Amino acid sequence: MSRKLAVIGLGHVGDAAAHYIVANGFADDLVLIDPNEGKVVADAIDLQDAMPNLPFHTNITVNDYSALKDADVIISALGDIKLQDNPNNDRFAELPFTSAQVKDVAAKIKASGFNGIIVAITNPVDVITSIYQSVTGLPKKHVIGTGTLLDSARMKHAVADELHIDSRSVAGYNLGEHGNSQFTAWSTVRVLGHPISEVAKEKNLDLEKLDKQAREGGFKVFQGKKYTSFGVATAAVRLANTVLNNALTELPVSNFREEYGVYLSYPAIVGRDGIVEQIQLDLTEDELKKLQVSADYIKTKFAESLAK
Amino acid sequence: MSRKLAVIGLGHVGDAAAHYIVANGFADDLVLIDPNEGKVVADAIDLQDAMPNLPFHTNITVNDYSALKDADVIISALGDIKLQDNPNNDRFAELPFTSAQVKDVAAKIKASGFNGIIVAITNPVDVITSIYQSVTGLPKKHVIGTGTLLDSARMKHAVADELHIDSRSVAGYNLGEHGNSQFTAWSTVRVLGHPISEVAKEKNLDLEKLDKQAREGGFKVFQGKKYTSFGVATAAVRLANTVLNNALTELPVSNFREEYGVYLSYPAIVGRDGIVEQIQLDLTEDELKKLQVSADYIKTKFAESLAK
Amino acid sequence: MSRKLAVIGLGHVGDAAAHYIVANGFADDLVLIDPNEGKVVADAIDLQDAMPNLPFHTNITVNDYSALKDADVIISALGDIKLQDNPNNDRFAELPFTSAQVKDVAAKIKASGFNGIIVAITNPVDVITSIYQSVTGLPKKHVIGTGTLLDSARMKHAVADELHIDSRSVAGYNLGEHGNSQFTAWSTVRVLGHPISEVAKEKNLDLEKLDKQAREGGFKVFQGKKYTSFGVATAAVRLANTVLNNALTELPVSNFREEYGVYLSYPAIVGRDGIVEQIQLDLTEDELKKLQVSADYIKTKFAESLAK
Amino acid sequence: MSRKLAVIGLGHVGDAAAHYIVANGFADDLVLIDPNEGKVVADAIDLQDAMPNLPFHTNITVNDYSALKDADVIISALGDIKLQDNPNNDRFAELPFTSAQVKDVAAKIKASGFNGIIVAITNPVDVITSIYQSVTGLPKKHVIGTGTLLDSARMKHAVADELHIDSRSVAGYNLGEHGNSQFTAWSTVRVLGHPISEVAKEKNLDLEKLDKQAREGGFKVFQGKKYTSFGVATAAVRLANTVLNNALTELPVSNFREEYGVYLSYPAIVGRDGIVEQIQLDLTEDELKKLQVSADYIKTKFAESLAK
Repeated sequence: MSRKLAVIGLGHVGDAAAHYIVANGFADDLVLIDPNEGKVVADAIDLQDAMPNLPFHTNITVNDYSALKDADVIISALGDIKLQDNPNNDRFAELPFTSAQVKDVAAKIKASGFNGIIVAITNPVDVITSIYQSVTGLPKKHVIGTGTLLDSARMKHAVADELHIDSRSVAGYNLGEHGNSQFTAWSTVRVLGHPISEVAKEKNLDLEKLDKQAREGGFKVFQGKKYTSFGVATAAVRLANTVLNNALTELPVSNFREEYGVYLSYPAIVGRDGIVEQIQLDLTEDELKKLQVSADYIKTKFAESLAK
Repeated sequence: MSRKLAVIGLGHVGDAAAHYIVANGFADDLVLIDPNEGKVVADAIDLQDAMPNLPFHTNITVNDYSALKDADVIISALGDIKLQDNPNNDRFAELPFTSAQVKDVAAKIKASGFNGIIVAITNPVDVITSIYQSVTGLPKKHVIGTGTLLDSARMKHAVADELHIDSRSVAGYNLGEHGNSQFTAWSTVRVLGHPISEVAKEKNLDLEKLDKQAREGGFKVFQGKKYTSFGVATAAVRLANTVLNNALTELPVSNFREEYGVYLSYPAIVGRDGIVEQIQLDLTEDELKKLQVSADYIKTKFAESLAK
Repeated sequence: MSRKLAVIGLGHVGDAAAHYIVANGFADDLVLIDPNEGKVVADAIDLQDAMPNLPFHTNITVNDYSALKDADVIISALGDIKLQDNPNNDRFAELPFTSAQVKDVAAKIKASGFNGIIVAITNPVDVITSIYQSVTGLPKKHVIGTGTLLDSARMKHAVADELHIDSRSVAGYNLGEHGNSQFTAWSTVRVLGHPISEVAKEKNLDLEKLDKQAREGGFKVFQGKKYTSFGVATAAVRLANTVLNNALTELPVSNFREEYGVYLSYPAIVGRDGIVEQIQLDLTEDELKKLQVSADYIKTKFAESLAK
Repeated sequence: MSRKLAVIGLGHVGDAAAHYIVANGFADDLVLIDPNEGKVVADAIDLQDAMPNLPFHTNITVNDYSALKDADVIISALGDIKLQDNPNNDRFAELPFTSAQVKDVAAKIKASGFNGIIVAITNPVDVITSIYQSVTGLPKKHVIGTGTLLDSARMKHAVADELHIDSRSVAGYNLGEHGNSQFTAWSTVRVLGHPISEVAKEKNLDLEKLDKQAREGGFKVFQGKKYTSFGVATAAVRLANTVLNNALTELPVSNFREEYGVYLSYPAIVGRDGIVEQIQLDLTEDELKKLQVSADYIKTKFAESLAK
């Protein structure tokens, strides 16, 4: 019945996602929504100006919530990254702003009769994903945050650079909050045919430094260009494609884990039915503690924001 | 020997071009150059953060002119689009700024020993292409401007919208300056199996309005988002791929036409040797006049800028 | 709702189409159907063995007609090309064999409740398309033959080779039967910015030779490898994608033209609703005669086959 | 300097590889070589007939060994799979035929001045890779066999099917001969966040059955369609792309391991310089024994063939 994607929020991230989708013909129909009507109309025109030089045709609809009714996946790229420009680069600084926006948008999504999968990029993503779920009333498994799919990529990038190999030859996960309390679960990381702990010994890798690099990778990009875009947009579109293809791929994304009572990033099998199966890792004691800390942090900050 | 592309100038346009190249694996090696070191380093990191979620690997080098020595194609996306924010949206308002930058960059390109093809997007593109050619000393056919490859796409978009068909089902060209003196050569435009003049009569198309729409399409995008990116980046990458593939494709691009003594947009056959063959259209008297006016305009503005 | 394609007939052509679809992630779900159960199961396994080394996931279903119920497009690649191994390489030699097969398959498609678009490659394609339409009872505009989309490509290839340019820089059509009575409508062919008649004079092109080359291009491939595959499979998948994308692209395909009372190839606008609009070309007297001859030939051969 | 690939041997595998390369624009220049001139010329025409309906242009050269001089990668897809139609489906049954062909071809490759990477698919691939290396005199690291890159894919496919997940979510390797003495090194296989041994217990997986399925996956395809094509062609092109991109990806391919004195499949880091780094796995005693057996088998069969 053809593929229909939507991108809500056409800032740097939404722009990169929409461009990536159109340039590759991933969707037949693409709905673009942004409160800044002039901006989103301009983006649509610009994408249509690209089409005569592209191999695929994409039908673009602008600022029409009713068009979401039969969309397969909505990518939420709303946000105001300037708010992250604080001493700790804390993504929670965006919450007051984005939570208000997202509640409004989520209500409109619900009103549209949308019955597909939401992929949230908007920060603080674990809380925002939760808000999307509660406001839309969609099943928890149908609302997913990109979470540490990006941070895991940053960790792979950091490890790969150190070892002079392709980042896709590094396996493993960053877990927890897509934020400062996240961590690389080194017990899950394998490279060059070995657990990274062994490789680290042999090759003198400083895992703490690499962990920091993954966690703070975003800040470095942020400091340099005042936003991040390609990495997270690519992660979001990959997630959307995984849903469209019903690929049943294992990905570390923000999904609701009963045992923690919050959305946080932990690998799961993703398909057309959203989170099709949750994985159970064998984490070390230390990692379990860090994950609990991260879960508690998300919970506390969420509660604080509700109390305000 | 693998494909090596370079993008100089990582503003909105260079960003979109670099992202498009990396997301599609068009190049094996990609050199990114920008005077804003923080920005270009951030872009490189961001693209590398995308790679674990992409199928292809691209080796990225940052701000190293010596890496241009064996590049196949350099895309120049330098510019300061804010300068176009003038009453006439005149792209020549960018000339004092960009010509200085380009002279500097072109000298560095020359010093690198670069011997490939330059694809210029930088505005005013017809003059900038000329400057690149004269400073680098490369053969005229090896320096090409994207020119009206974009405006022709805009014209196709405008016509296609009116007729409810795919923009790739419209054939024809905008000619002359990539700027206000350009025009749609309607005698070259065919659609639905007919010259557009016939279709226009039958379907009551207002060709003047469409011509304006094509010419001013960029301003509408500019007004909405304060820059344009996807359309022109796609045109530039298509042009670069045409060179890499040695495709020998007919494209309306800015190339040096002896009879006008300037770079201006006119269709040509493009391949690994740049402008491999120049086309000779059968333009109407009126179109020939408009083209002469456009050529004169470019020449005059260029001369003025030299005089300053 | 995701893209669902089906390929019926896994000979060389169906193989190439299925491989192309899976390698590019064009479909989320792919149904493969062939009377030779061993063959089609083997193809499905082989495609699945390719997937770990591909970027996209495709869900493959084998020999299940009920899976066609919600398919978007069915590509019919049934046939026995050996039967074309006759002195005239007449594609009608396949008719007794393929018409029986197609009637059976079409009845099963109808029984499945299929309500999408059929893209027929099976030869003689103009008659087979007609049989698919009458047996399934689908609207005429929802059953399309690849027809001269392939022969037009062969003509472009022939012209482009002669002029040392990219075949995509040649515009124009072969019309009529996808068979020996077809012809290149030279009045529709443009290249290097001119009608080909002018270019032919200037560059001494022998259009009759090129016409023959286009028409007999298939035989040369057939003689060399005893089948043809890449060209026609690519045309069929392009047509399927045009439908999925609702691209509204002008393509020369086999569609039912009232004035001739048969399916034959003539350009039309193709989208999700199949043949969305029929084009009306300005053919020369000579071309109109040839088209009538071709239409009559299809009609006669069809009638003969019904009489048997 | 643009990408130049060659495919030698245009049987089912070479066909699928060439089609995949052209359809995706992976190469700018493609050299096709086959002793059956009629067949390879037909393939080239057929691919060129596809191009007007494809987004990329590929320059195809036929049966010209001198064109290999500056090729980046040669894919050897020579072979006569009918010879595998023996009770044990022993790929060594092809050796007398293919070794003679390969010696001849390798000498011509050498004579061309070729200085790139050879990717061998031809069976028995471990011995054939060795022959290519010794006859061409290329460095050992520049001659690579696809080996168990395919069998590992088959293992992933088998495991994924059993667990209803994407085959790309299974990590691990088949090692040794691309033939009957190969085995799945289960100690390297991880899925759902765990070593497969744990998952197997919990989910009652029969690893021996899965090992057999991976090893004999090819036979099932072979029995069904009398050849295999998509899986191995995809593996070979992925390997070629890894070289072109200089991706430095870890892949299980046939490479020369000093400790065994033969080419056999074992993961390595692959880039533009071929086998850039060899991995050292922590295999179990049992796996080490199996690998030795497989290495000995290759050595013995190779020696036997030399003695004949």
